[in-house]
Amino acid sequence: MDILFAHNKKEGIEFIERLKGKNPGFICVIGNTETAKISGISVAGANPEITDFTPAADCELLYFGECKCIPGVPITPDGIPTPGLITMSALNLADLSKLVVIGGVRVYPQIPYVEVGGSPGSDIRTGNAVKNVKEVIGRSIILGENLADYCDKLNYLVIGESIAGGTTTTLGVLSAMGIEGKGKVSSSMPINPHKLKQEIIEEGMKSANLEFGSCKDDPIKAIECLGDPMIPACAGLVLGAGKKIPILLAGGTQMTSILAVVKKINPKILKNLAIGTTRWIIEDEQSDIKGIVDQIETIPILAVNLDFNKLKAEGLKAYEKDIAKEGVGAGGSSIAAILKNENINTDTLLVEIEKNYEILMTKK
Amino acid sequence: MDILFAHNKKEGIEFIERLKGKNPGFICVIGNTETAKISGISVAGANPEITDFTPAADCELLYFGECKCIPGVPITPDGIPTPGLITMSALNLADLSKLVVIGGVRVYPQIPYVEVGGSPGSDIRTGNAVKNVKEVIGRSIILGENLADYCDKLNYLVIGESIAGGTTTTLGVLSAMGIEGKGKVSSSMPINPHKLKQEIIEEGMKSANLEFGSCKDDPIKAIECLGDPMIPACAGLVLGAGKKIPILLAGGTQMTSILAVVKKINPKILKNLAIGTTRWIIEDEQSDIKGIVDQIETIPILAVNLDFNKLKAEGLKAYEKDIAKEGVGAGGSSIAAILKNENINTDTLLVEIEKNYEILMTKK
Repeated sequence: MDILFAHNKKEGIEFIERLKGKNPGFICVIGNTETAKISGISVAGANPEITDFTPAADCELLYFGECKCIPGVPITPDGIPTPGLITMSALNLADLSKLVVIGGVRVYPQIPYVEVGGSPGSDIRTGNAVKNVKEVIGRSIILGENLADYCDKLNYLVIGESIAGGTTTTLGVLSAMGIEGKGKVSSSMPINPHKLKQEIIEEGMKSANLEFGSCKDDPIKAIECLGDPMIPACAGLVLGAGKKIPILLAGGTQMTSILAVVKKINPKILKNLAIGTTRWIIEDEQSDIKGIVDQIETIPILAVNLDFNKLKAEGLKAYEKDIAKEGVGAGGSSIAAILKNENINTDTLLVEIEKNYEILMTKK
Repeated sequence: MDILFAHNKKEGIEFIERLKGKNPGFICVIGNTETAKISGISVAGANPEITDFTPAADCELLYFGECKCIPGVPITPDGIPTPGLITMSALNLADLSKLVVIGGVRVYPQIPYVEVGGSPGSDIRTGNAVKNVKEVIGRSIILGENLADYCDKLNYLVIGESIAGGTTTTLGVLSAMGIEGKGKVSSSMPINPHKLKQEIIEEGMKSANLEFGSCKDDPIKAIECLGDPMIPACAGLVLGAGKKIPILLAGGTQMTSILAVVKKINPKILKNLAIGTTRWIIEDEQSDIKGIVDQIETIPILAVNLDFNKLKAEGLKAYEKDIAKEGVGAGGSSIAAILKNENINTDTLLVEIEKNYEILMTKK
């Protein structure tokens, strides 16, 4: 099986039937949050300060096959390469179009990108995490509507993200909205720092005078207080385009905050959504994406069945040891590539990924 | 006739056959240049200083049916409304998708927009008009390629512009490239200030140590010295998307500088291009778009046959008295609307335009 029906299988099978043979657009929504720089929270970068560069570098990798704003490619402190390598391979193999949307960043990628009025996020311990949330959602809805209209509504979108610290802010938004994410959100690290994440969001809730569920009916406030700048841009895109076309949410547990926000603003959209992720997320014993989704809606979860144990490169085999796991829409873009072209499968993807890995490592 | 074959009729008929029934994306490329503030150069705004706001306001009009960054809508000093009113009417009637690309502006629209690395332009009398031209062209090519790929290459793009002062900078680029634009570029004013435009570009050429034709083979330098920030972004989009899909250049004489630049960088693209404009441009006795195009290539010129004499509103009738004429892709978007939907013609467009005019004037 190249694509695993990881959750809500019946809906997943139906959803996939709607996407087969189509040529979707891939969107990557990027952001920075100061939350990522809290010691022990993220390995999306060789050190905490460099996490600001990771989303921009990931996007450059998709366009140029190399990064411009940093030397080499984003790596963990142990040298494990960004999941953007998987995305790049999938997009190239299937010749999918790309668009980068800025949720709010400190470091801009050296490519064309769409602005929707956002700015970088603050440390959520302040309880004052994201500015201008309503405006960003509004502008992103307009963008989503226009992307759906272009193409005679025959197509679909794959929306991924790159933001370091994003699972912690997701935990914040879920908690503020009364959805249990404690111990359930994923991590790029082999040992998921659940306790630290919980302490951070509890400090943020205290600063914002919130309790678990206080923002049950106010997703805007939940994002403003405890979210990150990726969330309003991504949710707005989904709200705008999802009225007309299917959307594959290409990410791990971070996409559950999008589901929660979208459900509260326009629940009709949910029937057009599925999560597309990696096997490493759905098999992860330290997180529980299904348990979060079940609290929101019957949304199918699909996972690309990439097995990096088949590869020679040690830097890639690490993905089988609970490192990195997902990001930059790696799982969703792989699924979209497989669905677009019947000559693409996990084997051809593995060859392409290893080839690109070797090229990048040689350059470095 | 709703659409006039104004020039190179055979090619125009063939071109239109390729577009009929399709659903294009509309792109508006905007910019600001200090050149617009030279007294007597532009009436794209109630006074020279406000011309900085005109492109942003035009774009907001397309999205919201009203402007956000200024009260009312962009008008000439005599109160004649922006041709964006025509574009807005055409896009709404035909339900065309929109995307705004920033060539380089001082005032940003309050909508989603794409950045391609540009910045506002300087007064071309300095001979140092636009920065970062090569990079902007490069990023815009990437954007154009990706917009063309999205949609299975089945579609086309309509690319318009809004930049005050743009015919003067076009004259600059044409002259630097050895194309005779003197007395031939259009104007938003009833009396075309040809002499003033010529003096400005001659001063610019002197400052840049250029003569007529010095940049015959260097379009980048022609733009850097005497162009405006709309040109590299628009040319790049055309170079990127035009490899794969047809493009309707929605504008008047300003689009000839795009043709000249594109021809020098990749002449193969030209077979995928037509100019789509208004009857007011092709019938204008004070400019000569055909005479410029003939010096470049056999490119068809199409014109929408809107007759504002049929309307009651005096503010619109002024268009029949050589005011405004074209801008914001008014002519091209009208042509695209007519070609998309056989129920749309110049009569239905006139009704929609007058309706929107009345709504806007009431709001004001």
